[in-house]
Amino acid sequence: MDMDTLLVEPAGLEQVEDALRRFFEESKNRAAKIGPGYQALWETLERCTAGGKRFRPRLVMSAYQMLGGRDLENAAELGAAFELLHTALIVHDDVIDRDFVRRGIPNVSGRYRSLAEAAGLSPDGARHVGLSAGVIAGDLALSNAYRLLERVAAPPATRRRLGDILDEAVFASAAGEFLDVETSLSSDVPPLEDIVQMARLKTSVYSFEGPLQAGAVLAGAGEDVVERLGDFGRDAGIAYQIADDLLGVFGSETRTGKTNWGDLREGKRTALLSYVSGRPEWESISSLVGSPGMSAADADFVRRILVDSGAKDYSAGLAAQYASRARTHLESDAVPSALRSALQPVVTAVVDRVH
Amino acid sequence: MDMDTLLVEPAGLEQVEDALRRFFEESKNRAAKIGPGYQALWETLERCTAGGKRFRPRLVMSAYQMLGGRDLENAAELGAAFELLHTALIVHDDVIDRDFVRRGIPNVSGRYRSLAEAAGLSPDGARHVGLSAGVIAGDLALSNAYRLLERVAAPPATRRRLGDILDEAVFASAAGEFLDVETSLSSDVPPLEDIVQMARLKTSVYSFEGPLQAGAVLAGAGEDVVERLGDFGRDAGIAYQIADDLLGVFGSETRTGKTNWGDLREGKRTALLSYVSGRPEWESISSLVGSPGMSAADADFVRRILVDSGAKDYSAGLAAQYASRARTHLESDAVPSALRSALQPVVTAVVDRVH
Repeated sequence: MDMDTLLVEPAGLEQVEDALRRFFEESKNRAAKIGPGYQALWETLERCTAGGKRFRPRLVMSAYQMLGGRDLENAAELGAAFELLHTALIVHDDVIDRDFVRRGIPNVSGRYRSLAEAAGLSPDGARHVGLSAGVIAGDLALSNAYRLLERVAAPPATRRRLGDILDEAVFASAAGEFLDVETSLSSDVPPLEDIVQMARLKTSVYSFEGPLQAGAVLAGAGEDVVERLGDFGRDAGIAYQIADDLLGVFGSETRTGKTNWGDLREGKRTALLSYVSGRPEWESISSLVGSPGMSAADADFVRRILVDSGAKDYSAGLAAQYASRARTHLESDAVPSALRSALQPVVTAVVDRVH
Repeated sequence: MDMDTLLVEPAGLEQVEDALRRFFEESKNRAAKIGPGYQALWETLERCTAGGKRFRPRLVMSAYQMLGGRDLENAAELGAAFELLHTALIVHDDVIDRDFVRRGIPNVSGRYRSLAEAAGLSPDGARHVGLSAGVIAGDLALSNAYRLLERVAAPPATRRRLGDILDEAVFASAAGEFLDVETSLSSDVPPLEDIVQMARLKTSVYSFEGPLQAGAVLAGAGEDVVERLGDFGRDAGIAYQIADDLLGVFGSETRTGKTNWGDLREGKRTALLSYVSGRPEWESISSLVGSPGMSAADADFVRRILVDSGAKDYSAGLAAQYASRARTHLESDAVPSALRSALQPVVTAVVDRVH
């Protein structure tokens, strides 16, 4: 599910584009002094950033403005920092997943794998060149998220809070990514609480909680609303991730932009699998799930079992439940009604997509 | 060549250890709340950091104190930031080189490859788990280098300068790492100027220039001395790298802690190879250099050619020349004599080792 379907349309998105454009212009000019190859790496990184719908900057700008912030240029640097963090995380996530394509076009690793193949390297060698370029490009995006944050003008105490929020986003995302890797060491499907924890770590913190709280803190909002936004972001992110996993298995390929059995073939740990693995039906599909040789027919069979066992309904219900909890946090008196109205559609969209 | 042989013994190294210990204690406690696996990743990262001789913090602390800085606790956070950057770069460098061992013990990737093997994964799968853990651990070290820098108390203008210096270190190191990857796409040995540029990017900036300039800036030193320290660091780092490459081929294994033909087998691009590749002798060794099947006898043969062709003497002379240039920068009136005396041994040690 693309996050761009979660409608938040604040002012200041152009300023975010400007901040990113400025940053990449500067970086490419600097890189050009070192050499055309390094400049090309920066151009590739910029292209990776260009496709996005700026979901995280939207949340930053919404929270900031709905809580009284007026300096859009300044807040845009903060939005750009979260966008760059997002780029860093997807570039390294693709390295870890050994994915060479994102949204149908070659990612950083895909581009450099192609160049290495053209240079005559072996498939294994070319793959490794691609992954190496991905490691380096992700490092540049990650470190420059901190750099963009440094550009935000704010009093020292606010800067420290913003630093803590970005730090928490990195700390949690790395934890989620690591738990994913650890989970791949075992054939057991983790219990639901672990699935929910991973969703929170990998999705909620950097995509929802962090941007919302950072925007609020920069606007000078009170602790109570910052806390509520954190609660909202946590539950909205979990709902989003569960819904996204459902769409990864049951969504139409044209809408998600990827095959809807890749997740099954990879054995991706989801609420769906966690549910079904505790039921007798699991025996009939456990050897198919996560098998590299899975066919389209196998995938259809697994999907039928996921429906018949109740796993699909259970997961959809779980997403709805987290979405509803998220909405409840917005009901707090601490949350101004304009912000509530801006954020309601985010969770509504999550639930609408899976029903 | 271990950087610990480059003798700089300033006060404040204990404070650097304390700063690192505090940072890892906090991080491990935070990670423990997420789970024992994530805590173990942090413990592994701490072990990677623990072995080092703190070369970069030594330069930070030397420059700081010799230029009048007195707050060792504060400067120690800066030293710790450079140490963590060093950890980040070696962890990701090992991922890119597919190395699973450093200084004779398993690195982050080696440790997690072993765990994955024990869990029954295929060799390829286990290798990838190891590399993935390395990507994540390196990200944590990199982002926390910025965090430690944030802890340094300094006026806004000084903070900005320190941020720029750390940024330049990351920007240059990534460029050097990337040029290394790019170079591997071609069988041509790059010209000497490219070898020197890579040495500057990969070694000088983050290991010499950055720590020295950062220490100076924090001490409130004038622009002239900051600039001279940059010049010194650039040339000293280049000298160091050329000397290190020589030791990688001609050094005794017990002194360097690694085999002295790994570099030849990998075809590592060095001043040695750049020199010999322009001479008729190259024909007799070009097919051996970079060949995975290289034997000890092959290596002996290549070494003999490197001596007979004059490549060894040329490289040693080049290292001495850069070391001498580095010394000249210290002669500037802008550099206080105490700092000059502290830094002279650094370059002397570089040249002594290769003669």
